[in-house]
Amino acid sequence: MGGSSEIQQTEASEAGSLAICLVSGGMDSCVTAAIPRVENAGLAFLHVSYGQRTEDRERRAFADLAKHFGVEKRLNPSIEYLKSMGGSSLTDERIDVAEANLAARSIPSSYVPFRNSHLLAIATSWAEVIGASRIYIGAVAEDSSGYPDCRPEFYEAFQQVIDVGTKPDTNIEIVTPVINLRKSEIIKRGLELNAPLDLTWSCYQAQDLACGRCDSCALRLRAFAAAGVVDPIKYA
Amino acid sequence: MGGSSEIQQTEASEAGSLAICLVSGGMDSCVTAAIPRVENAGLAFLHVSYGQRTEDRERRAFADLAKHFGVEKRLNPSIEYLKSMGGSSLTDERIDVAEANLAARSIPSSYVPFRNSHLLAIATSWAEVIGASRIYIGAVAEDSSGYPDCRPEFYEAFQQVIDVGTKPDTNIEIVTPVINLRKSEIIKRGLELNAPLDLTWSCYQAQDLACGRCDSCALRLRAFAAAGVVDPIKYA
Repeated sequence: MGGSSEIQQTEASEAGSLAICLVSGGMDSCVTAAIPRVENAGLAFLHVSYGQRTEDRERRAFADLAKHFGVEKRLNPSIEYLKSMGGSSLTDERIDVAEANLAARSIPSSYVPFRNSHLLAIATSWAEVIGASRIYIGAVAEDSSGYPDCRPEFYEAFQQVIDVGTKPDTNIEIVTPVINLRKSEIIKRGLELNAPLDLTWSCYQAQDLACGRCDSCALRLRAFAAAGVVDPIKYA
Repeated sequence: MGGSSEIQQTEASEAGSLAICLVSGGMDSCVTAAIPRVENAGLAFLHVSYGQRTEDRERRAFADLAKHFGVEKRLNPSIEYLKSMGGSSLTDERIDVAEANLAARSIPSSYVPFRNSHLLAIATSWAEVIGASRIYIGAVAEDSSGYPDCRPEFYEAFQQVIDVGTKPDTNIEIVTPVINLRKSEIIKRGLELNAPLDLTWSCYQAQDLACGRCDSCALRLRAFAAAGVVDPIKYA
C-alpha cells in the first residue's frame, strides 16, 4: 500500500464527512471511488445517464462498483436531452465511433459538448441537499482524449461557480485525485487500493466484449501495457 | 421606444448571429427575450422543466411566448431529478410555498439548489452544437428573492467555465440584460419593447389564477405598482 500515504495527503481528508463520487463505471472513476473510502468519508455514488451508446453496460458497472464498495446512497439521473442535441459520436448514432488515433491533437468526435458541467451541476445540487462537502470526479487531463472539460482549469473555474452559486453556508469542494496521473499510474494506484478494475467498463461502442479499437479501449490497453499488468476484462 | 438605444449598447450586438434565450415563462425572461430580437440575432428558445409545481402553466407560457416571437427553434429538456432530490418548496410537495416576506434577508425556501447552473450547462451544450454565440438569461439580482445563482458574480464565474470547458474555437457569451434592473424598470423596458407581459406566468403555486401571496407574485405586484401600470394577468 505504498501509495496510501500520498492519498492521505490530498487536501480533502476530513474524517467523518460525506462525499459524493461521480462513477461512470470506467477505470478512472473506479480508482477515484476507492480514495474517499481510504479518507474515511461517508460515500454517495452518482451515475449520470446521458444517452450514451453503452449506457446499459455502464450502469451495470456502476451497480457492481456500488455493491463492491458497499455504497447504499445512489443517484442515477437521466440527462438524455444531450442525446437529442447530438454533436457527439457517443450519443448520435449517425456519427461513427472513430477508430483510435491517440496521436491526433484535435478534439475527437466522442467529445460530448460541455458534458462534465452537467455532471458537476447535478453533483453540486445533490451535495447541497444531502450536506456533502466534497465531490470526487475521476477526470484525467494529459494522458487522455483531450476533452476541454477534463483539464484542471475547468475544475478550478467550476469551483468558483460553486462558491458563489450556492448558499453562503454551503461549502463544497471538487476533488480530482487522478487528474494529473498517467493512465498507467491510475492502474497502479488502483491495484494498491484493491480497486475492482475487473468490474469496470471503458469501451465506447460495445457492451458485451470490449471492442479494443475505440479511443477509450486504446487508452486503456496502452495503460495496462505500460503498467505491465494484464487487463482483467475481455476483448473481442 | 426610449430604451432601445440603451439596449443596442449591450456588448452582444453582432447582427446576424444566433442566440439562445432561456425562457421560463415569467416576466423577466419575456422582456429578456425581446432584446435579442432588437439586436437582430436569430433566436432559439430553451425552457427547462425541473419538476416545479407550476410546470404545466410555465410550459404554456413558454409556448405562447415562442409563438408570439415567431421562434421555431425550441428545446424543452427535463431535469426532473431536481425534484427527486428535493430541498426546495418549488419541487418538494412536503415543503409549503411560504407567504411572501420581501423584507427577509435569508434565502427563501423556494431556492432550488444550484438550479441556474443546470440551465446554463444545458444552454451551453446546445449553443455549442447549434453554433449559437450568445446565451440570454433574465436573472435579476438585487430586487429579487436573494438566490445566490442570480447574482452577477455567478454569471461571471460561469462564463469562465464556458471559456475553458468548451472547444478552443467555441465562443459563447452569457448575456444578462436585466440583472441590475429593478423589477419595475423591467416592466417599463418590456412596455417599450412591446413585450407580451400578458402571456407570462410568475406564480409559484397556482396554475389557473395567480395566488398573489407567494414571493414571486408579491415581487411582481410590487413592481407593477411601482411602475404605475396595471398587471395584465388575473389574480385569485
